[in-house]
Order: sequence, then C-alpha cells, then structure tokens
Amino acid sequence: MRWHYVLYVIAILIVFLGLFMLLPLGVSLIYAEAGLLPYLKSMVISLGVGGVLFLSLRKKSARTDFVSQREGMGIVALGWMAVAGFGALPFYFSGQFGGFTDCLFESVSGFTTTGASILREIEPIPKGMLFWRSFIQWLGGMGIIVLSLAILPILGVGGMQLYKAEVPSPVPDKLKPRIRETAMILWKVYALITGLQIVLLMLGGMDLYDALNHAFATLPTGGFSTKNASVAHYNSVYIDMVIALFMILAGINFTLHYQFLKGETLAFWRDSECRFFLGTTLLLTLVVAFDIFGSVYDSAAEAFRYSLFQIASILTTTGFATADYEQWPAMSQVILLLCMFIGGSAGSTGGGMKCLRVMVCFKYCYKELFSLIHPHAVTHVKIAGKTVPEDVVRSVLGFLALYMILFAAAVVLLAGTGVDLLTAFGAVAGTIGNIGPGFGMVGPVENYADIPILGKWLLIWCMLLGRLEIYTVIILLVPEFWRK
Amino acid sequence: MRWHYVLYVIAILIVFLGLFMLLPLGVSLIYAEAGLLPYLKSMVISLGVGGVLFLSLRKKSARTDFVSQREGMGIVALGWMAVAGFGALPFYFSGQFGGFTDCLFESVSGFTTTGASILREIEPIPKGMLFWRSFIQWLGGMGIIVLSLAILPILGVGGMQLYKAEVPSPVPDKLKPRIRETAMILWKVYALITGLQIVLLMLGGMDLYDALNHAFATLPTGGFSTKNASVAHYNSVYIDMVIALFMILAGINFTLHYQFLKGETLAFWRDSECRFFLGTTLLLTLVVAFDIFGSVYDSAAEAFRYSLFQIASILTTTGFATADYEQWPAMSQVILLLCMFIGGSAGSTGGGMKCLRVMVCFKYCYKELFSLIHPHAVTHVKIAGKTVPEDVVRSVLGFLALYMILFAAAVVLLAGTGVDLLTAFGAVAGTIGNIGPGFGMVGPVENYADIPILGKWLLIWCMLLGRLEIYTVIILLVPEFWRK
Repeated sequence: MRWHYVLYVIAILIVFLGLFMLLPLGVSLIYAEAGLLPYLKSMVISLGVGGVLFLSLRKKSARTDFVSQREGMGIVALGWMAVAGFGALPFYFSGQFGGFTDCLFESVSGFTTTGASILREIEPIPKGMLFWRSFIQWLGGMGIIVLSLAILPILGVGGMQLYKAEVPSPVPDKLKPRIRETAMILWKVYALITGLQIVLLMLGGMDLYDALNHAFATLPTGGFSTKNASVAHYNSVYIDMVIALFMILAGINFTLHYQFLKGETLAFWRDSECRFFLGTTLLLTLVVAFDIFGSVYDSAAEAFRYSLFQIASILTTTGFATADYEQWPAMSQVILLLCMFIGGSAGSTGGGMKCLRVMVCFKYCYKELFSLIHPHAVTHVKIAGKTVPEDVVRSVLGFLALYMILFAAAVVLLAGTGVDLLTAFGAVAGTIGNIGPGFGMVGPVENYADIPILGKWLLIWCMLLGRLEIYTVIILLVPEFWRK
Repeated sequence: MRWHYVLYVIAILIVFLGLFMLLPLGVSLIYAEAGLLPYLKSMVISLGVGGVLFLSLRKKSARTDFVSQREGMGIVALGWMAVAGFGALPFYFSGQFGGFTDCLFESVSGFTTTGASILREIEPIPKGMLFWRSFIQWLGGMGIIVLSLAILPILGVGGMQLYKAEVPSPVPDKLKPRIRETAMILWKVYALITGLQIVLLMLGGMDLYDALNHAFATLPTGGFSTKNASVAHYNSVYIDMVIALFMILAGINFTLHYQFLKGETLAFWRDSECRFFLGTTLLLTLVVAFDIFGSVYDSAAEAFRYSLFQIASILTTTGFATADYEQWPAMSQVILLLCMFIGGSAGSTGGGMKCLRVMVCFKYCYKELFSLIHPHAVTHVKIAGKTVPEDVVRSVLGFLALYMILFAAAVVLLAGTGVDLLTAFGAVAGTIGNIGPGFGMVGPVENYADIPILGKWLLIWCMLLGRLEIYTVIILLVPEFWRK
C-alpha cells in the first residue's frame, strides 16, 4: 500500500473541489448576496491543504501508472470522506447549517447523493449556498458512475464483476488508463442529459436557478430541492413528469445511455436489468396507484401521477417528494419501503441493493427450487443469456446478506440513541439506500434535524456504506488494511 | 411420484391423530366438562377418512421401502397441512374458536409450534380443548425434530445438508430406515425433557394440568398458554426461570441433548452453533436488560429477569410472555424483532432462519472481506473446523434471501388487507418465524383475532412456510412438482 499515492490522488480531488467553490461564489455574486466569506475561507483551506499535499507528493507519485486493489479501495473510501469533509466547509462558515456534525451530515448526504437534510427551512438559505448543496450532489453522481462502472467491477466488490465483461481487457491491478477513458465518455453523457433536463424544466416555467438546482439533484438521484415542499412546490403536472422521467433515466445503467446516444435505439430494451428496472417501476406504480385511488385521490389520473412520481423517486433513490406517502395506505408504504432496498440499476447513480443483484438473487432462488424437483439436472443462473459464475452468485448473495446485517445493526444502534421504532427503521433505510426521506420522524415532509447527534454520525456512516457498496467502507475497519 | 404412497403415509398420520384425540376427551372427562361431542365427532371423521384411505392404499404401498426426494417433500408439506386440517376439527365442533378460518389458524399455529392465537379470552375455554391446543404443539415439535434432523439434511433444503455428516451412510432416495431410527432416539429425548419440565413446574406450585400444558408448549417452542396473561399470570421468579431454561434447551439441537444424555458432558460446549446460540442469548439479554433497567424496571435483577425471559422466548421462537415488550424502549424492541429472524438452532424445535444459517452467513461475509484484502489467498467458510462446501454456502445464502423475499411479499399482501404498517411487519415476522406474538395489533398482550380473514389465510401460509423451511411448501406451487 503506497499511502503517498492514495494521498496524492485525494489531494487532487480536494484541489478540484476548491476550484469548484468558485461556482457558488459566482451565484452569490450574481444574486448580490451578502456573505462571500464562507466560500473564500473554504477555498483557501481546500486549495491550501490540497495544494500543499499535492506539491509535496507529486514527485513521488505522479509517475505511478498502476493502482493496486487495496489502493483503489483506499482512494475511493478515503477520497469520498475527504471531499465530503472539505465540501462541508462552506456550510459551516455560513453559520446557517448548525454545528459541525450537521454541516458534515449535509455534505455527506450531498456527495453520496442521498438527499437527507438537516435543514428545517430551506428557502431562507442564500442561493449560493443552496447551489453548492445541489452541485455537490451532481459531483457525487459523477463519482458514482465512475465508481460503479469502472472501479468496482475490477475490484470485484459484491458481485459487481458481472460488469467486467463490458470493460474490454480487464487487467487487474492496472486500473488507471481504463478508468480515465471510461470516465470521460460517461461524464459527457451525464452532462448532456443534465443539460437536456435543464432546458425541459425551463420550458415548463422554472427559472434558470431552480432548473439548474433540480437538474443537479435529479441525475445523481440526489433529491435536494431549493423548496421546503420539494417538487410539490411547483404543483405542475409537466414538471412532475419531466422530473419523474429524468429520475427514471438516472436509475438506468449509464453505459446504456451511451449506447443509445451512439445510435443503438434498442439498447434499453436489450438489457435485462433495464427491463427489470422499468418493469418494476411500472408494476409498482400501478399497484400503488390502485391502492391510493379512492382512498387518497379521487381521480385515477391523479393517483397515477402521484404514484409514478413517488415510486420513481424512491426506487431510483432520489428522494424528491410531491406527496406525503406516510398518509397513504399501509400497502403503499410497505411497497415504498421495499423500493428503498431494491434501488436503481447497477451502473446508474441510484443507490439501494441494485436491480442487478436483486435479479441474480431471484434467479438463484428459482434455480434452487428447480434443482429440488430435478436433483440431477445441472442448471446455472443466467443474466442476458450468459451464465453467471457461481462465485459471483455467491458474492451477490453475500453482499445482500451483509447489507441486511448492517441495516439491522444500524437500526439497533439508532434506536439506542432514543428515536422511536419506525424512525429507526425509516432513517436507516433512507440513508443506507441513499434515498433521503424515510419514515417516522424523517418522512418526506420532515427532515433529519431532530435526530440525536450520535444518530447523525451513525447515519453519516450509513450513507457512506450504502454509497460505496459497503465493502469499500467496511474494509477500513479491518486492521490489516492499514498495514504496509 | 407415487401419489398412493404419499397419501398412504398421510393416512397413517391422520389415524394416529384421531387416536390422540382420546387424550383431550379424557381430560374433559376428568374435569367433568360438558361437550364431549366435539372430540367424538372429530375422532369419527379422522379415523374414518384416515382409515378408509389407509385400508384402500395399504396393499399397494405397505411394501415400499424407499422414498424419493419429491415424495419426501410431498409427505412433509401435505402431511403437515392434512394433520393441521383434521386437528382443527375439535376446535370447530366446540363452537368456541369462531369460524373455520379461525379454527384452522389456531390448529396450524399449534402444529407449526407458532403459538399465534385467535382467542381473545383463553380462560373460559374448556380444559379439554386447551389441552388439545397445547398437545398439538407438542406433536408438531416431534415432527419438526425428525424433519430437521432426519429428512431435510437428506433432501438438501436451504443448506441443511450441513447436517448430513451427522447421519451415517446417507443414501439419497432411501430415507425410510434412517428416519425411523433417528426419530425413535430423538423422541425419547424429547419426552424425557418434557417430563423433567413437568416435574420442575409442579415443584414451583403449578398444578398438574397447567404444568402439562406449559411443558407441552415449551419444548416445541410453541407458546400457547392456558392463561390470558401467558406466563406473567404466575408472577413467580422460579416459574419464569424454569420456563426460560427449558425454552433455551428447546432452542438447542436435539442431537446434542442426546449426546449429553449419553454422557458427553461437553457436548453443548463443543458445538459451535450451540455456543453461538447461547452466546447470542446471553449478549442480547444483557443489552436489553441494560436498556430496560431504569427506563422500565427499577432493579437490575428485575430487568435481567424480564429481559432473559423475553429474549429466550423470542429467540427460540416460543412466544411466552412475562412483559409487554411493546412498552420497552425502541432499541429493545428492535433487538426482539431481530431475534424473530435469527431463531433457534438448526435441529431444534425453534423457528426463524436458524443460528447455523446466520453463522454461515456471517462467516461468508468475513471471508469476502478478507479476500478483498488478500485477493490471492484461498479461504473457506468453516464450521466446527470443517470446510463448508461452496455450494452449501450458496444454498444457505439463497435460503436467507428467499426468506427475506417471502417476508417482504407477505408484508405487502398483509398490509393490503388493511392492517397498519407496524402490524403488517409484526404479524408476518411473528408467523413466518413461528414465534406467535409480533408487534402492533398482534403484540405480546394482544392476539390475532382482529386480523382480516384474508390476512389470516396469508398468515396460515406464512406459518407453514416458516416451519417447513420454505422450499418444502413453495415447491407445491411449481406445476412440475405435480406431474407424474
């Protein structure tokens, strides 16, 4: 483990982050807001710390042309934490986000694209600060795409080696060139779709500022809004549908977007995970619409509208709200809770367990059943016609088990801080799945402000665990990881 | 699939069941209770149907000396259902258990050793009827021991082939002689421990009738009591501790009891699953005692007493209550909910996922983590020093996943019948894990009477699914199973 190299990469990230702080500064200048000092202080610290680290490690590290598995994990986990830490500085210096824990919570929630907020009132916050809050989600989303499509498949975390096939010539221990190339293509796609959403939102009557903010929070499946009432504020069918559409796009594997843009019009249809994701969205939307039609909404169209938005929002783990689903019948609530666990596609910005893993799990269970009836038949789990190696199936099942174990442990600990049963479940589900809103005290019309401070720290870890596919974070707790 | 043979075995079970109905009849006679007709009617029907089936199939089936895997599954699943159906007759004819659904619910709850009851008031029910209610749990427990230690390991359900090693010369497709031999030994152990508990309860001042009933409900981890307030009725530290001890014994693999009785004094200690089970019981008891000390109970001794009883009751999936844990702090509630999923040891009468599977799952997750740090090291999951084959690990993980999938599906469906969120979770957790009490409307001081009728039918399936290790029941839904 070459720590200097890990630190060197993290230093670069921090320097870039410092430079990005010019954007909220610019927004504040445009809107002639008082209080530019928070941005300037944060920039000085970020560029200072990042710059000194960069310069002192450059000689030793710049020529490194391969990264080991352990170094890759270290960069991912520690890098995300460092960036979230420095990204919290503007919030902290603004004095409007509460103490250090609250600022870090908001920043981690942003960079992990969770969207859980400690803000009781969003609208009084300066526009520059809210812009930073949305923008860090967009940055986090970029990071996740690269993580899930270029880094994790090679590291072999939780069965994600399933995607190895799509990365030509996967030479283990030589991540760098591959990652750079993949990243550049995907980021272009990411920026393009974001731009499209901004235009469509403005056509619906949103001003540029709100359109930028909501687009920056949609594609990374983040969910921070500039309005207290979230997307419900606009009360517009058009805006609901545009955001729902882009949430669904955000929940799809980004390589498919790339293939589609290259002209493969059937790319989405051909991918079995995408079919599963879209099918699940449609099916659950219909079931929930049926459940809330009559009991909550008088018209079928309204029931469908609110069901689609909420299902898309929770299943893709975005967390925007146009309705308080805690007022819906129990079945709809249970379905939304399940959506928190399923999550988006692997290779999307969505969180949760990921559709691909859920599919592998379903198929394996069916295979087990089949082999009880035909004990001598040899069967395999297949995804898209290809056999999934048995060790990958095991990895996937192990990942799902670990996910549930950590979920349960976090619920016990959060309940130990004094919150009630439903809140403990809802808050952990909402953060480990990177959704944002949960149930109980942290429902879609509430926030995380009243969670005890120890609970906030726990949820910060949950957000990181969920976002970085668990193993990447939990490995930091193994002493052997830190040995030379 | 030789259906005549499956039916033949089931016919024998029903005839025996009919004969066992003499026992509650005897109890009613002793207490000079009115209403012997329900027993007589039930006996005539059971002996009639069972006898006719037996006689008509005897010639064709009696000489069968091997059972195929599919036939084994058919006998287990359909046999359990048939016995529960005929066992419900005395309840039905008594007219004191409500309609057919309620009677079947109570009987399935008995034979699956769940202990969920639809009775609002237990004490007005005649003694003979309550005796039958306890006794069918005891019979169900006998069935489970044979199922889990002699049948499932050979059928290879959900990784239970781990126990194959303990069954000498496992010749697949030839279950009969093995099962008979194993069964006889284990039933003797089962009867012996039950007798011991009856004596100890009577020494604590319980009368013979109550001692019989509670012992019949303890060893199968059933949980039906003859008192409205369950074990809390006696308000005796001695009785609490005796029942807690026997609940814990019931949660241990019965082969260990056999080994212990043969003179291997270290049998419990040497078994890693037993250590895990006892360690978990102790650890969670201490945590919950700490949580309720001060907040619910003023003395540490009381906190320990109530914590131990409730943890032992829920972890072993018995379901007796001495306290209303829904009034406890949230952390204790979450821990009890988790206990519902962990369950007792494999090879015990306890339900839930089983400690052995949870252990395999933990060890596999640790192995995955280890192999991320040492990508080239070859590691295996070991239980008791022996390597667990990789396909067995996969089976175990698949079982846990399927358990959670069915749990989630059942919660959605139950919520769809109109119960609230917490009740939906609590009732499914309480039935699929064969515990009895859950949360919400079905907490430890409530009952299942108010669950809608469709919900009761769903929970009947949950009890059977949980008890028969899922695959054995779910296989009935696969059309291929029914083909010749």
